[in-house]
Amino acid sequence: MSFKVITISREFGSGGRTIAKEVAKRLGYEFYDRAIVDKIAVDTGFAPEYIEEESEYSRSKSFLSYVFASAPGHGTVMGAPGLSTADYLWTAQYKIIKDLAEKGSCVIVGRCSDYILRDRTDTLNVFIHANKDFRAGRIVSSYGASDKKPMKRIEEMDNKRKVHYKHFTDRVWGMSQNYHLSLDSSLLGIDACVDMIIGIVEKANGTEK
Amino acid sequence: MSFKVITISREFGSGGRTIAKEVAKRLGYEFYDRAIVDKIAVDTGFAPEYIEEESEYSRSKSFLSYVFASAPGHGTVMGAPGLSTADYLWTAQYKIIKDLAEKGSCVIVGRCSDYILRDRTDTLNVFIHANKDFRAGRIVSSYGASDKKPMKRIEEMDNKRKVHYKHFTDRVWGMSQNYHLSLDSSLLGIDACVDMIIGIVEKANGTEK
Repeated sequence: MSFKVITISREFGSGGRTIAKEVAKRLGYEFYDRAIVDKIAVDTGFAPEYIEEESEYSRSKSFLSYVFASAPGHGTVMGAPGLSTADYLWTAQYKIIKDLAEKGSCVIVGRCSDYILRDRTDTLNVFIHANKDFRAGRIVSSYGASDKKPMKRIEEMDNKRKVHYKHFTDRVWGMSQNYHLSLDSSLLGIDACVDMIIGIVEKANGTEK
Repeated sequence: MSFKVITISREFGSGGRTIAKEVAKRLGYEFYDRAIVDKIAVDTGFAPEYIEEESEYSRSKSFLSYVFASAPGHGTVMGAPGLSTADYLWTAQYKIIKDLAEKGSCVIVGRCSDYILRDRTDTLNVFIHANKDFRAGRIVSSYGASDKKPMKRIEEMDNKRKVHYKHFTDRVWGMSQNYHLSLDSSLLGIDACVDMIIGIVEKANGTEK
């Protein structure tokens, strides 16, 4: 057994993205986060900012919003009649993530990649979570303050991700059973989370130092 | 930070109990599994077999079953009118688990101990899960075959634990956020799970070898 692909799903503010980036760097794997958005943008013609919002937080739109989304001038969704914008972006994202995993060793952040790659036997699925105080502190230091209180931002983001994940995977977001490894970064520490993931991968790959 | 107490919750057949026992042995911590049942039996007067079933798998009984449970000759529940048997056993278990954690370094298996000890800062909460084929194989090798198919036994046990946990904790059983560490023993292996838990505890306790 060896792990060529690592998916890192995470709660907002848990440090999951930082952990994923460091794991990729130390293993010499490709790191895919924002690059997935850019690739979807190229493939679909939608603006990256729009995709950023829709690809992790949306759920299928109502019929009416589909009608508006597919109105003239709204890009390539016209080419796929019957699909909502969110569903259309999902299929694009699904294909891109499958292709990236096929291409070479990589770490993929979020975007239901644990679910999309669930049938691969060379993929380690990780979930990073943390207590709310830790997350609130990180949100402000990483993304800056906003009019909205950090706890409110956490609640809204958790809810969006939960609804999005449930809609496209029919699973409960954050259930241990969706992942091979779930870690509380607020208790264990960001560095220890990185070390544990690296330890598992290097042991499986026979590249222990 | 140091970890004096480790709770290990687990899916039936995941090897969680084996992992807990080995962790306790290697750390020189007390191991509490069956001992909790015996202690509840001494404190309440109920038979250990009855407690075994009720303390992890029951939920609060209906009014009618309470009436029968509290009929003369049914033990000490008579001394606590208004409580169902399940609720009465829960309070006994709650107190015993709190006391055991207070007493000294220990590993506690299941029984909602992650929830009961959630306010302690010296407790590491672990959840062990595994894929169903792995669990089915272990159930037969550990507990022997029965008329009921292993997959059926797994489903029934998962459902019982889920309902019991939800009833007494108002949480979803198996959610990553309930634990500091959740591990898939079928992918990582029993020994690796033991090593990872030991690694975290020894690092926190400053007893790394």
